Amino acid sequence: MDYQKIIEAVYAEVKSWENKGQIAQYIPELSNVNPRQLGVHVSTLDGYDVGMGDHHTKFSIQSIAKVLSLTLAYRLRGNELWKRVGVEPSGTPFNSLVQLEHDQGIPRNPMINAGAIVICDILVSHFRNPKKELLAFVREVAQNPDIAFNESVAQSELSVGYRNTALINLMKAFGNIDNDIELVLDLYCYMCSLEMTCQELSRAFLFLANDGIDPITQHQVLSLTRSKRVNAIMQTCGFYDEAGEFSFRVGLPGKSGVGGGIVAVHPEHFSIAVWSPRLNKKGNSYRGMKFLEQFTTQTGLSVF
Amino acid sequence: MDYQKIIEAVYAEVKSWENKGQIAQYIPELSNVNPRQLGVHVSTLDGYDVGMGDHHTKFSIQSIAKVLSLTLAYRLRGNELWKRVGVEPSGTPFNSLVQLEHDQGIPRNPMINAGAIVICDILVSHFRNPKKELLAFVREVAQNPDIAFNESVAQSELSVGYRNTALINLMKAFGNIDNDIELVLDLYCYMCSLEMTCQELSRAFLFLANDGIDPITQHQVLSLTRSKRVNAIMQTCGFYDEAGEFSFRVGLPGKSGVGGGIVAVHPEHFSIAVWSPRLNKKGNSYRGMKFLEQFTTQTGLSVF
Amino acid sequence: MDYQKIIEAVYAEVKSWENKGQIAQYIPELSNVNPRQLGVHVSTLDGYDVGMGDHHTKFSIQSIAKVLSLTLAYRLRGNELWKRVGVEPSGTPFNSLVQLEHDQGIPRNPMINAGAIVICDILVSHFRNPKKELLAFVREVAQNPDIAFNESVAQSELSVGYRNTALINLMKAFGNIDNDIELVLDLYCYMCSLEMTCQELSRAFLFLANDGIDPITQHQVLSLTRSKRVNAIMQTCGFYDEAGEFSFRVGLPGKSGVGGGIVAVHPEHFSIAVWSPRLNKKGNSYRGMKFLEQFTTQTGLSVF
Amino acid sequence: MDYQKIIEAVYAEVKSWENKGQIAQYIPELSNVNPRQLGVHVSTLDGYDVGMGDHHTKFSIQSIAKVLSLTLAYRLRGNELWKRVGVEPSGTPFNSLVQLEHDQGIPRNPMINAGAIVICDILVSHFRNPKKELLAFVREVAQNPDIAFNESVAQSELSVGYRNTALINLMKAFGNIDNDIELVLDLYCYMCSLEMTCQELSRAFLFLANDGIDPITQHQVLSLTRSKRVNAIMQTCGFYDEAGEFSFRVGLPGKSGVGGGIVAVHPEHFSIAVWSPRLNKKGNSYRGMKFLEQFTTQTGLSVF
Repeated sequence: MDYQKIIEAVYAEVKSWENKGQIAQYIPELSNVNPRQLGVHVSTLDGYDVGMGDHHTKFSIQSIAKVLSLTLAYRLRGNELWKRVGVEPSGTPFNSLVQLEHDQGIPRNPMINAGAIVICDILVSHFRNPKKELLAFVREVAQNPDIAFNESVAQSELSVGYRNTALINLMKAFGNIDNDIELVLDLYCYMCSLEMTCQELSRAFLFLANDGIDPITQHQVLSLTRSKRVNAIMQTCGFYDEAGEFSFRVGLPGKSGVGGGIVAVHPEHFSIAVWSPRLNKKGNSYRGMKFLEQFTTQTGLSVF
Repeated sequence: MDYQKIIEAVYAEVKSWENKGQIAQYIPELSNVNPRQLGVHVSTLDGYDVGMGDHHTKFSIQSIAKVLSLTLAYRLRGNELWKRVGVEPSGTPFNSLVQLEHDQGIPRNPMINAGAIVICDILVSHFRNPKKELLAFVREVAQNPDIAFNESVAQSELSVGYRNTALINLMKAFGNIDNDIELVLDLYCYMCSLEMTCQELSRAFLFLANDGIDPITQHQVLSLTRSKRVNAIMQTCGFYDEAGEFSFRVGLPGKSGVGGGIVAVHPEHFSIAVWSPRLNKKGNSYRGMKFLEQFTTQTGLSVF
Repeated sequence: MDYQKIIEAVYAEVKSWENKGQIAQYIPELSNVNPRQLGVHVSTLDGYDVGMGDHHTKFSIQSIAKVLSLTLAYRLRGNELWKRVGVEPSGTPFNSLVQLEHDQGIPRNPMINAGAIVICDILVSHFRNPKKELLAFVREVAQNPDIAFNESVAQSELSVGYRNTALINLMKAFGNIDNDIELVLDLYCYMCSLEMTCQELSRAFLFLANDGIDPITQHQVLSLTRSKRVNAIMQTCGFYDEAGEFSFRVGLPGKSGVGGGIVAVHPEHFSIAVWSPRLNKKGNSYRGMKFLEQFTTQTGLSVF
Repeated sequence: MDYQKIIEAVYAEVKSWENKGQIAQYIPELSNVNPRQLGVHVSTLDGYDVGMGDHHTKFSIQSIAKVLSLTLAYRLRGNELWKRVGVEPSGTPFNSLVQLEHDQGIPRNPMINAGAIVICDILVSHFRNPKKELLAFVREVAQNPDIAFNESVAQSELSVGYRNTALINLMKAFGNIDNDIELVLDLYCYMCSLEMTCQELSRAFLFLANDGIDPITQHQVLSLTRSKRVNAIMQTCGFYDEAGEFSFRVGLPGKSGVGGGIVAVHPEHFSIAVWSPRLNKKGNSYRGMKFLEQFTTQTGLSVF
């Protein structure tokens, strides 16, 4: 398949449409991004590596990082994880407290904020310096030492993160947070502040398209079963209350972030990252969703 | 891949475990089934057709039929459907009214009872004799004229279906049911009373493993895109509030019924049907879930 | 206290304000009422009986009748009632199904539709001809043989009562309805169709202002304790999700209906009925609420 | 009425029953209280002042203090309050986040934790030293300079108050908290740590039985209308999801605290405080509820 040609065609098409939606407004670092940017990058298992537009521009990956922290915690703790966080779609927005109260402090899945905070709590319990270790892990899977946190984004998120503070306190009240709240939120906000390019993201997620093994270094990041399970969680839970819509339209396991990035993988074939800052009403990149829908429709490449 | 050998091995393993769970109790026709039965059947795109145990015994397919009625309605009405029913996982049990009230009478997806009832309403609007037409369609995709409703099951369900009557009345109050309530519930209960064997079920679902085309007759049941979308809906919504768990453990689009049947498809490869009457707490076949988990774990065959 | 003078003053004041709100639209019999009408009538324990405006015009008392059916059932069954219906405010609209699902089919209180339907089920179990007996009871407490059901209103409500049908079916699914659904809904809709004037209503509720004893006939309708409890239920639950607002502004136990009527009692002093057809957003008479707020504010007559 | 005699009789009766329920466990200062204690004190408008048992023992008044902080804020800000907190019963437990998320950060009423926290926020905005001013106000209405915070209780509550921290952060996320979270929670926890005896409590609440005027000093604490409204809020919201039950059984406006205290007022007649540390499942004093039910049943003294 000529990925380059398809990407060019879809890119041109999406560029020609109106660029709808709103950029994330809650911190200045996100709201000041140029909303016209659009980047896309595909990395295939057989070594193709093609991109277009702003695919070499760093952006805030935000919730996409939840997949990487989950991978690290899953590697460290195995199925012990699932005592503290579920694998079911939530049917509610990403930061809802309703479900958490109903389920006694056990988040529905690790892709919503509450679940990702529990994963951070697990990392804080395990590492003396969790931020440093998480960063080292991300650099390892991306095979790229240039990836870094954005200190200013992390501090901004910490300063306005009332809802996340509400979530973690509610879970602490139910006994599902072991560590000091400030330490855990610190890791969580730094994690979300990670900056990567589309090229770096699609490279970093390649192991999930290859049964847990990095196809370039042949390093095993996750076992076969665990790799499939991370994909399954992305498929059912990666887009909050639009997870079904993404499955329905795009048909790939994927994860979005409020920075406008989306990454998706086609097991046995490729990983793909798209970025465009304007978000639809559910908080997912407007043009990113459009791009991926066109891409899988035109190529017929979906898991279904 | 030697499906016969794998199936034999997994079958023996699952048979050796304790047969936990409860048989459905709400109508006598379901509660009187012999709970020790276990059947499995795989049909592959390249023509293999292998089964074991009680795979030639008819059972009540119940909610599995929702996939077939959805297919028929999708063929007839296309994307008009999605104005009246969503594609998001519900995060709640199959017969919950809470979500329906919150979303003003629009069911989350066509796999929960409320959504399947809306699909029946669409069929009642379209056909003069919807029961006859639905049966004809099921016989066509199964290429089998012996499939039939079980009158006694249908009448039993009609007589105790208070919750479904509540659901349809609530939707009617919101204006999302066009036809007479009794006509729609009649179709719904007959649809759920369909009886098929594992062999017939796996045969009938083959088109969903083949991009919408029956691989034997070459007849196009659904377009490529729509076939993928039906699979996507099964993946995210096919097991009520255990949909994530099924994705996580089995990794295939699938659908269960309270009769103890489960059908799943591996796009481009095969469809599989399992049946064992005892249900776990979420209402899905206890041994059916175990069988499919072992099957995809041992074969590495999952969409992820 | 010169009730006549106060009523005249408040009446003039409320009449001078804009007549806001919407008349009930769901059945023609209610929507065709002249919205400019306003009636009020006060009956005191010491024999005063004064009214103004349209206080001799019959109107559909609708949910106000729930207090009378509760009184009858309470008299017949005593505290057995509270096994099947609670006494807590619901915090939700009058016809919500959410709470009912959460509480396993036990309605929060007998003033919301679900609770009143359970009361009707109890009356259907007790009487061979429950409509006739309920009517006889209402005529008795009102000391007025002219009170009647409005057949046309009852039939209209039966024909569009999808939400009530949903409620009763959900309760039947939970085992909290003993009788045939149609029989119970028939009684419920006839009960709501009762027509009375403000004068008749305030007369009928006098026993609740007098510890359960009709002050004119000296007949004991309810025991002291039960009479106080019916008042307590009106106080906390009589205005659906505006019950707190009514307590806050008016400070009397009371009950409203979508026909635009409100009745309230001041224990040891008087009962009062107001009627004006336009409803506020919560479904309570716009001018009725204003009248009672002015009335208790100016007289200082409230239970608090 | 011979209050002394009635109180002695009811006291003996309640003492003779089993002392059921659990003492509050979440902080050591509450869990270490002797559970056998029972105190009661009545203060009447005409100057009677009678008590029994442990009515001169200080205890932690906890949520009862919410009525006093509401009174102070209402005096300062008038009806501006109701833009930030409602007057409806919540239908949910005292510390639920569900309603708060649904209503966009506006608590249902000032008697649940979230609402009382908003009231504290208002006091923090108004006073340079809110703790000192609140204490001065409580001493003033109680006419007693010996009332004090319990520093150790306040600090314990601050250290384990995860759920209250969740509530205030959620409200802050919705823009309904103006001040620094720590300042507001500090005031809230000190307020709840107030210690008073039954005698002091019944004295302090006398103004609510007398239309807002302290009957001894003749000082006007609240206007007539506002006093009635505070009573109305206690009536419909004072016992969380047992408010209806308290109205039903006791029939007086009242407020409970997890320290085991309950205070209630009978407008135009008296105020009464009861204290016994064991709590029923809803978090209200087991023997306190029994005492008040017997007391109003035997005296016939209730607002209904």
